[in-house]
Amino acid sequence: MSIPHAEQLTGEEFRQALQQSRIAILPIGAIEFHGPHLPTGTDNFLAMKMAEEVAKRTGGVLLPLLPYGQVWGLEHFPGSLNVPNETLTALLFEIGVSLHRQGAVIFAIINGHLGNMTAIQAAARRLFSIEGFITYAFSYPGLAEAASRICASRPLPGGYFHADEIETSLLLYAQPELVHMERAIRDEPQLPPDFGSRQVRWEEITKTGVLGDATVATREKGEALLQALVSRVVEILEYGRSRYLAK
Amino acid sequence: MSIPHAEQLTGEEFRQALQQSRIAILPIGAIEFHGPHLPTGTDNFLAMKMAEEVAKRTGGVLLPLLPYGQVWGLEHFPGSLNVPNETLTALLFEIGVSLHRQGAVIFAIINGHLGNMTAIQAAARRLFSIEGFITYAFSYPGLAEAASRICASRPLPGGYFHADEIETSLLLYAQPELVHMERAIRDEPQLPPDFGSRQVRWEEITKTGVLGDATVATREKGEALLQALVSRVVEILEYGRSRYLAK
Amino acid sequence: MSIPHAEQLTGEEFRQALQQSRIAILPIGAIEFHGPHLPTGTDNFLAMKMAEEVAKRTGGVLLPLLPYGQVWGLEHFPGSLNVPNETLTALLFEIGVSLHRQGAVIFAIINGHLGNMTAIQAAARRLFSIEGFITYAFSYPGLAEAASRICASRPLPGGYFHADEIETSLLLYAQPELVHMERAIRDEPQLPPDFGSRQVRWEEITKTGVLGDATVATREKGEALLQALVSRVVEILEYGRSRYLAK
Amino acid sequence: MSIPHAEQLTGEEFRQALQQSRIAILPIGAIEFHGPHLPTGTDNFLAMKMAEEVAKRTGGVLLPLLPYGQVWGLEHFPGSLNVPNETLTALLFEIGVSLHRQGAVIFAIINGHLGNMTAIQAAARRLFSIEGFITYAFSYPGLAEAASRICASRPLPGGYFHADEIETSLLLYAQPELVHMERAIRDEPQLPPDFGSRQVRWEEITKTGVLGDATVATREKGEALLQALVSRVVEILEYGRSRYLAK
Amino acid sequence: MSIPHAEQLTGEEFRQALQQSRIAILPIGAIEFHGPHLPTGTDNFLAMKMAEEVAKRTGGVLLPLLPYGQVWGLEHFPGSLNVPNETLTALLFEIGVSLHRQGAVIFAIINGHLGNMTAIQAAARRLFSIEGFITYAFSYPGLAEAASRICASRPLPGGYFHADEIETSLLLYAQPELVHMERAIRDEPQLPPDFGSRQVRWEEITKTGVLGDATVATREKGEALLQALVSRVVEILEYGRSRYLAK
Amino acid sequence: MSIPHAEQLTGEEFRQALQQSRIAILPIGAIEFHGPHLPTGTDNFLAMKMAEEVAKRTGGVLLPLLPYGQVWGLEHFPGSLNVPNETLTALLFEIGVSLHRQGAVIFAIINGHLGNMTAIQAAARRLFSIEGFITYAFSYPGLAEAASRICASRPLPGGYFHADEIETSLLLYAQPELVHMERAIRDEPQLPPDFGSRQVRWEEITKTGVLGDATVATREKGEALLQALVSRVVEILEYGRSRYLAK
Repeated sequence: MSIPHAEQLTGEEFRQALQQSRIAILPIGAIEFHGPHLPTGTDNFLAMKMAEEVAKRTGGVLLPLLPYGQVWGLEHFPGSLNVPNETLTALLFEIGVSLHRQGAVIFAIINGHLGNMTAIQAAARRLFSIEGFITYAFSYPGLAEAASRICASRPLPGGYFHADEIETSLLLYAQPELVHMERAIRDEPQLPPDFGSRQVRWEEITKTGVLGDATVATREKGEALLQALVSRVVEILEYGRSRYLAK
Repeated sequence: MSIPHAEQLTGEEFRQALQQSRIAILPIGAIEFHGPHLPTGTDNFLAMKMAEEVAKRTGGVLLPLLPYGQVWGLEHFPGSLNVPNETLTALLFEIGVSLHRQGAVIFAIINGHLGNMTAIQAAARRLFSIEGFITYAFSYPGLAEAASRICASRPLPGGYFHADEIETSLLLYAQPELVHMERAIRDEPQLPPDFGSRQVRWEEITKTGVLGDATVATREKGEALLQALVSRVVEILEYGRSRYLAK
Repeated sequence: MSIPHAEQLTGEEFRQALQQSRIAILPIGAIEFHGPHLPTGTDNFLAMKMAEEVAKRTGGVLLPLLPYGQVWGLEHFPGSLNVPNETLTALLFEIGVSLHRQGAVIFAIINGHLGNMTAIQAAARRLFSIEGFITYAFSYPGLAEAASRICASRPLPGGYFHADEIETSLLLYAQPELVHMERAIRDEPQLPPDFGSRQVRWEEITKTGVLGDATVATREKGEALLQALVSRVVEILEYGRSRYLAK
Repeated sequence: MSIPHAEQLTGEEFRQALQQSRIAILPIGAIEFHGPHLPTGTDNFLAMKMAEEVAKRTGGVLLPLLPYGQVWGLEHFPGSLNVPNETLTALLFEIGVSLHRQGAVIFAIINGHLGNMTAIQAAARRLFSIEGFITYAFSYPGLAEAASRICASRPLPGGYFHADEIETSLLLYAQPELVHMERAIRDEPQLPPDFGSRQVRWEEITKTGVLGDATVATREKGEALLQALVSRVVEILEYGRSRYLAK
Repeated sequence: MSIPHAEQLTGEEFRQALQQSRIAILPIGAIEFHGPHLPTGTDNFLAMKMAEEVAKRTGGVLLPLLPYGQVWGLEHFPGSLNVPNETLTALLFEIGVSLHRQGAVIFAIINGHLGNMTAIQAAARRLFSIEGFITYAFSYPGLAEAASRICASRPLPGGYFHADEIETSLLLYAQPELVHMERAIRDEPQLPPDFGSRQVRWEEITKTGVLGDATVATREKGEALLQALVSRVVEILEYGRSRYLAK
Repeated sequence: MSIPHAEQLTGEEFRQALQQSRIAILPIGAIEFHGPHLPTGTDNFLAMKMAEEVAKRTGGVLLPLLPYGQVWGLEHFPGSLNVPNETLTALLFEIGVSLHRQGAVIFAIINGHLGNMTAIQAAARRLFSIEGFITYAFSYPGLAEAASRICASRPLPGGYFHADEIETSLLLYAQPELVHMERAIRDEPQLPPDFGSRQVRWEEITKTGVLGDATVATREKGEALLQALVSRVVEILEYGRSRYLAK
């Protein structure tokens, strides 16, 4: 089945698709340093891949990728482009308002970059409070559990993973031609004892930007992880559909 | 020659590319109603096409497309998603700040949607005043002149053209599979006598969203127009390069 | 016929005048460097003169002049006082809200300074979107056409004219005692090839602040120009009146 | 001696005048209901009159009147146009920044409308903190004392006076042709016991907008009052000059 | 009678107390330098003491103290923590909105620090305009009159008093164990002639932070002053109750 | 050892204490519904208790409690007073700026209310980015681990606990006289399957506001929990001290 990409539809087709499925799907990522072997757009490619799968399986309307995000932690690394939370929240809120007025009932934001979550949640709250728009923020839901089954490593405390076994595997599945496995390294940074209680710039903990062992990544692990993540998103959206769209 | 797409490069590669060419190229468009025969993403496809050509011919680094814009005038049409000027300006400013710190000296914003110009110019001014970052805003430069040579029609007063001979031709060249020529129509709206002195919502002047005769559009006209536009952009950027990057 | 100046009327008289004509007229200008022969308040005097004429011919209520504007381009020249767009927009919006609540149906902003247009248009849009207040922004409408009949010179691309034949003529008509014709000069600056694509500070293109040949200005040209401009404004307002105030 | 009006000078003359006297004088008033006998621009005329006198006696450069102010208390009366504090503060701050950069050392804001004081003081504080610009806010200084000598009445608690003996006298001196003495009335409103602890809209305390006895106003009282006020302002500015401009 | 302290009640008890008395009482002070003999929390202790007394005598619900305020004037003195007006206004406004929605009809802000008044009045105005919430701002009402009966000294022009006979006496009554009378001094600063027309940092007028003679302070004076202030507040609130809560 | 309470010290003493210990400790809580048996100020009492213990054990200077927080989730419950994130962030940032200028090197925010974390982290980030001020945000660190040893229950996913065994035990230790154990209940709400992906108002999941079994709470559990939490905070601060204050 072909996915309705909002930007490829005429206005009338877009609105009809939206009024039929009532679900709008927005992928969001970032341009950010991702070690020596992954591209700066890694989070964008993953968000897009997940969003496409989710659109396929839910019939939601797929919106264009928002490719710039909040990368404060790695802001000083080469290739990182940072958008502050306030700006990102405002942008997501306004897109949401338009979608709601076009007939969407459920707004599913598929986030490929953890640093965006504060901004997304603020937008979701505002959209719900002011517009009554049901807004989901999905940021790799169920990853820790899936990783524990599929990978040798886990996300760091707080759910962080970056250019490691997990993310490298995911991109090997989503966009293999952009992964330089020959440059993949293992680098397990020592987190400072006050990590989690202090806002930490990543230059303090890593030189490489790799938070784990990228060398053991495989396309198969990536596929399994991504399918698990997508299934979790779809499951939640089906619940949302049954709750908010039932007749 | 292959164009360096920022999101496909590693962080280090991106920064090196930026420090070599010193030119960052950002395409920006919108999701907006474009009549019965053109997709909502028309301005995005055109911005992207022009930006790719410009990147090819200048060696600038191509950034990911920003696909949401300010569409106040058509906000009430199906498929339009609106981002207010203030938010767009803030977003562009922040992206610019990061680029400048990564080593860019010239920021070329290739705009596919006229409604974005106020926001882009405000960001450009702020980037120049605060950061000393040379920022260009290109919105189909030289179009009127090119259209007078190539097309039967011209932009409206103020430079507006929309889903007409010009834009349809451009998309026939840039993304032909998304143009429904069989639905193309001619609709030449009567502008109210106070047009240009009042902020006009488009529902007041058109039901179809077509501002002219889309039926006479051809791929050849589109190619000729686009090459003219790109040449004008490249010419200006070469001037900018000679002025700001010379040794 | 005497014009009702809002500030000279009692509150009750002001409201009655507003409720009778339904048209409020606000002149706005700027304090800005205008070459060696024109005063910094040139745009204020012209805005006021046009607004008085328009009030006379439409019966609209004339508000006090707003004498400070956005002069970013000439901000570094002697005598320029700059108000950023955001502040100007907020100010115009709030004045508009009050006028609308007092009974005005049409808000005619007579602008004497091109740099104000972005701010005025933003206010006009906000007043229309939020308050439903019909707001006109007049910035020398029809000038290019009138100048081509009356003057040797024309506005620059983008509609700019400054301390040149046109503006000097206009002030010779509006406030002749403030024009130092003995210091009038001719200075035709070379615009850089990227003019129009970049936010340009005027110190880059002129030392004198004169954009043309002020020496050929005459009071007669000024009168003819001003009458043409006023006629155009009145014509548009009469259309607005017929459309929004009928019955 | 003729006063240098900033808007009548060329840019170069303005800057020279500013660099010579180092004092910039800005009159600010409001458009506000002033009872049956006084015009809405009363505070503007008074601010202008005082500012002219102060300019004459100090040699400061006189800026154009800012004719819109914060009139929250009388916002619902006919003819009142309200600008909120935040907007007014931003506007004054920006004008101040430009003046400071043009060479002014002392900024004297001559205020004709008490409701503006909060906004003016906020701007003054910001100009001093951020720019180091010495900013004076004069709002009828010494009025209570002068009124006790010259008039039968006094300002209300908090320094309020409005369309009463004091203000009517002042305008009889400043702009006699705009005073309708034949409509002057006496109306001494009862203030509620919680006045001063609560933000009170004036419709709660008066129907006429007159806070006292306007019928006993005379031009002579007005002249005496105004001279007293101006003398106090001049005295303070002379102190400021001796302190900040000495050598 | 025990006072209902909002933070000690369960949510249901708090709402019931609020719906019974309809009056919410918020003490607000500051952390600010108060000379060699008084603690930085002086204004907090006084606000709390007055608020407790007022709660006792009116049956209003006592909210927790807001202990941070705007201390721009003494910002550079040791121990001063400054919160700008805008932030303070926003905070008070939001607390007010919640209280109003919980059933309060009268909001009594008992202010222990004069520097907070601008922010409190702005919040009060906004709460009244937007929410229709009757908001009182009490800042030592009737102090000048009471001091003239009880003390040797008076507040300065503008109502200022600081670490002097008045304030020291008040704290000797409210929190005697925190007063270091052995360090109390007399320091009567010379105010500059332009005081009141210019925003003055206190380092300009005092080294000690004492504005008068703290050595003559006594607990008895403090008690008498505080009772007078509280009586005045209670009197006004009883008027408010009779006016807004009748029936 | 007595703890230095900032508000009880004179300004000079406060600054000296700060310059000696270099650590400023700010407790922050909220006024929020906490079921039938706990007071609205529960989070305040806990924040204060922890902060006092931390001050005792680190020698940091204890600041006054900030008793209002962000309670969006329970905003519609009786007794909840909500402050939005933006306002809270601004307030914390400004207090931090003042502390930093007074000589503090480490800012330890002891948070008693999870809903505040977004705002606190934003303030911490801004203080670190702009001021270079090391800011810790402690929100019951190590609670999950401690609860697993001490209690029958655990925090919910996301770390939420509310009026349950954990929190009731904590308050039984911190402020036993305010706990109504006779009204304590057990209420284990079913979380919706999309919890964690959607911004959920608590009225959706609970009527009682109790998230677990409050009936099994004891003072002993509370003491053990609180000591564990405090020890964790102290441990982190000692690390911070060794890193940032060494020498």
